[in-house]
Amino acid sequence: MATTPAFDIVFFGGTGDLALRKLLPSLYHAHKDGVLHPDGRIHALGRKALGQDGYLALLEERVRPRLGEHADEPMWKTFLARVHFHVLDAQQPQHYATLANVLGPPSDRVVVCYLATAPSLFIPICEHLAAAGLNHSNVRVVLEKPLGHDLPSSNAINEAVGQCFTENQIYRIDHYLGKESVQNLLAVRFGNTLFEPLWRREWIDNVQITIAEELGVEERGDFYDRTGALRDMLQSHLLQLLCMVAMEPPASLTEDAVRDEKLKVLRSLKPFTPEDVLTKAVRGQYRSGAINGRPVPAYRDEPHVDPASNTETFVALQAEVSNWRWSGVPFFLRTGKRMQERVAEIVINFRRVPHTLFPMPIGLQSGNRLVIRLQPKEGVRLYFLAKQPGDAMSLQSTYLDLDFHAMFKARWSDAYERLLLDVIRGRLALFMRRDEQAQAWSWVEPILDCWSRHAIAPKMYTAGSWGPAASSGLLSRAGVAWHEEA
Amino acid sequence: MATTPAFDIVFFGGTGDLALRKLLPSLYHAHKDGVLHPDGRIHALGRKALGQDGYLALLEERVRPRLGEHADEPMWKTFLARVHFHVLDAQQPQHYATLANVLGPPSDRVVVCYLATAPSLFIPICEHLAAAGLNHSNVRVVLEKPLGHDLPSSNAINEAVGQCFTENQIYRIDHYLGKESVQNLLAVRFGNTLFEPLWRREWIDNVQITIAEELGVEERGDFYDRTGALRDMLQSHLLQLLCMVAMEPPASLTEDAVRDEKLKVLRSLKPFTPEDVLTKAVRGQYRSGAINGRPVPAYRDEPHVDPASNTETFVALQAEVSNWRWSGVPFFLRTGKRMQERVAEIVINFRRVPHTLFPMPIGLQSGNRLVIRLQPKEGVRLYFLAKQPGDAMSLQSTYLDLDFHAMFKARWSDAYERLLLDVIRGRLALFMRRDEQAQAWSWVEPILDCWSRHAIAPKMYTAGSWGPAASSGLLSRAGVAWHEEA
Repeated sequence: MATTPAFDIVFFGGTGDLALRKLLPSLYHAHKDGVLHPDGRIHALGRKALGQDGYLALLEERVRPRLGEHADEPMWKTFLARVHFHVLDAQQPQHYATLANVLGPPSDRVVVCYLATAPSLFIPICEHLAAAGLNHSNVRVVLEKPLGHDLPSSNAINEAVGQCFTENQIYRIDHYLGKESVQNLLAVRFGNTLFEPLWRREWIDNVQITIAEELGVEERGDFYDRTGALRDMLQSHLLQLLCMVAMEPPASLTEDAVRDEKLKVLRSLKPFTPEDVLTKAVRGQYRSGAINGRPVPAYRDEPHVDPASNTETFVALQAEVSNWRWSGVPFFLRTGKRMQERVAEIVINFRRVPHTLFPMPIGLQSGNRLVIRLQPKEGVRLYFLAKQPGDAMSLQSTYLDLDFHAMFKARWSDAYERLLLDVIRGRLALFMRRDEQAQAWSWVEPILDCWSRHAIAPKMYTAGSWGPAASSGLLSRAGVAWHEEA
Repeated sequence: MATTPAFDIVFFGGTGDLALRKLLPSLYHAHKDGVLHPDGRIHALGRKALGQDGYLALLEERVRPRLGEHADEPMWKTFLARVHFHVLDAQQPQHYATLANVLGPPSDRVVVCYLATAPSLFIPICEHLAAAGLNHSNVRVVLEKPLGHDLPSSNAINEAVGQCFTENQIYRIDHYLGKESVQNLLAVRFGNTLFEPLWRREWIDNVQITIAEELGVEERGDFYDRTGALRDMLQSHLLQLLCMVAMEPPASLTEDAVRDEKLKVLRSLKPFTPEDVLTKAVRGQYRSGAINGRPVPAYRDEPHVDPASNTETFVALQAEVSNWRWSGVPFFLRTGKRMQERVAEIVINFRRVPHTLFPMPIGLQSGNRLVIRLQPKEGVRLYFLAKQPGDAMSLQSTYLDLDFHAMFKARWSDAYERLLLDVIRGRLALFMRRDEQAQAWSWVEPILDCWSRHAIAPKMYTAGSWGPAASSGLLSRAGVAWHEEA
């Protein structure tokens, strides 16, 4: 693999959880694989005066154990040589001047500013960077969601950041799009003749996208209670995955070719009327229950959550993409906390054969199904029917597994690793463009509005279940059921 | 699995190779599985007065070792209790009267007469059976190829047998059609939504059907030298497999629904003009060489072969099915003796994607390919492209295996076992109807004619190779190559 250009990558929030758990380990792996330019520096910023030694000690303690066998001593030492700690208070303009000094005048070097901070700091950081001249054309800024709370607040952030950086300098990250299996969805569709001709209403009965978490709100009760599952997960990750499934073949994989196609999908999403909200959307909130045999509290009993909260911790929607390819095909989306298991997957259910030639055992799942699993273990599984061995001509369901881990011996790269390298290389295709984000907010807004205007309370579900019964009901009315692993 | 009706199965040639190697072991397995009706008797006929004890001793010596672990003593004993040996000289009418006595008057019992004899005996045996009244409606007669040497001789046999039995009593066996993987080809096509929509000229580039043997002519030099590969293999097995690939979906799996569709394919085969014979057919004959490191003689040096023989031991053809589904799609057929390895397979090569989005490593096999393997190990393999893991968006070829042996734990039944049970159950779908056979002969006749009229000598190939170079040339001209296992 070609190495990156020379770079400086700057982590705002360099002592934070994301940097220590994901970003630095990802860069270590890229370093070990020889993918990083020798002249690539990593700048970690923090408010506390840890000093260089203090920060390296922190990495020794927090990062190195995550690397397991990969962190042999000489390699780890050469990696640490790339790392530089600097004190920075995001609100102090003079600290940015120091940073600008460290980074030096504009040159061919790529400068990546990764804002692994609270979203409330996005605007001040960008403004201070610009004021210090750190917005020249080789600077890129990486933003994590949430980028706002609704369309106006999202617009406000994008507007302010857009005053400091051009759109092509802004990398809005969605780590689900960095998953190998999501990349493989593109390869499966557009690299093969087998699926694309069938990838349309004539042959697909319905699509299901699930991101289920076992976790509850953990330490984020305060944030989550103001946000809910629709804003936190569906508006962002699930709609992005829907775009990857539903988009037309782009003319190329360049950034705007892909993002234009995704935007077209978002624009084709049929808007929810208030009646749709009642019939095609399910709000849920977990009550106490058990996860893996361990009792867990109700959402309303979580720390920093309003004991009378009506925030949803689960949402299921039946969406429709109103275009020639997808008209009439339901896209079922669901996400929730405290679900039965942690799983993220895209399920494509093909139609049944038009005419049955073979005797079918009762209860046999009779359609073809392609399952793209994002977590916990990435893979692609194709369900289909084969003949039962023996002298009767009857069918049984079986599947073919594309198990990436087994199939390709290479080390498995994390989504963040791929996305960080994409930023350094200037590849925008997997990052959300402003208009995509605005369109996604526009689409969810009538649902949020309706819920709040009519004070629609979430339906309660037991922690450790698959959400409220209404979620199954949504699919039953369409004659289908949520996919369950065979 | 339901048990068969009560039956008498009569093996003409009961001491012969086919009976001992295939037919009796197959019945043993069905017996052990409890599929045979308790009142099912097996009558082995032979010219020599072995006596019942002598025959059972023969089974002990020749059949039982083939059964391995399956032949436990009590089960073997109960199987032998079904077996009855009778002396019969196929040319002696009075022996048939004795047989008729053994079998008793017509009843609900199914009577299967399996002619595991030289084809020259088919007509006399059938005539004697009829004369002895053993052609009543519950009698079925099973014929092995070769049924004739060309259209007139095949017609003569079918005509004579047809004087004694109605067409629905005649089971012309082709053991390739009894293979699990060929059955699964039907299930793959017609039990799933995934393939049938693509199973046509718009998406399929070419089809390849290969039956390659490592063996030479062995003890059959005399027969083979008068026959050749086109008559022996292509006219029968390869055209039957072609029909299974190319036929339209039948309305049901009943015998005539399937056989009507196969006949339609045979009738759609574009006739070979003399020019086609020169450009789209390759004749080959093996010269000396080596198989698995062991030297083997040339065909012309085989026992009972004319030292100046021009008989082909290899044939490759480019056929075309002239109908709406297949027009313009080449069907490449090849079969030969003394080939590099023993393999029988059907390869469906899908077209390339219409537009390339992904960088392709040079030499990457870029199309999708479905391989249905009949031997040595049955299975279905689907080749397709997936993303190379890591941060580049490039593809690599991989495959999904439907390995029947691994997937289904059930014991693996032999093609003969399925076909024998089909005969007992009266299922004709997998047996060739007279009109199919006549049509297949009609189609190969212009090729045979042209070869003999113009004395076209076979091209020599080294034993242990893949046949004459012209066989590859045939495909090169169409821009393709014979499939080789990855």
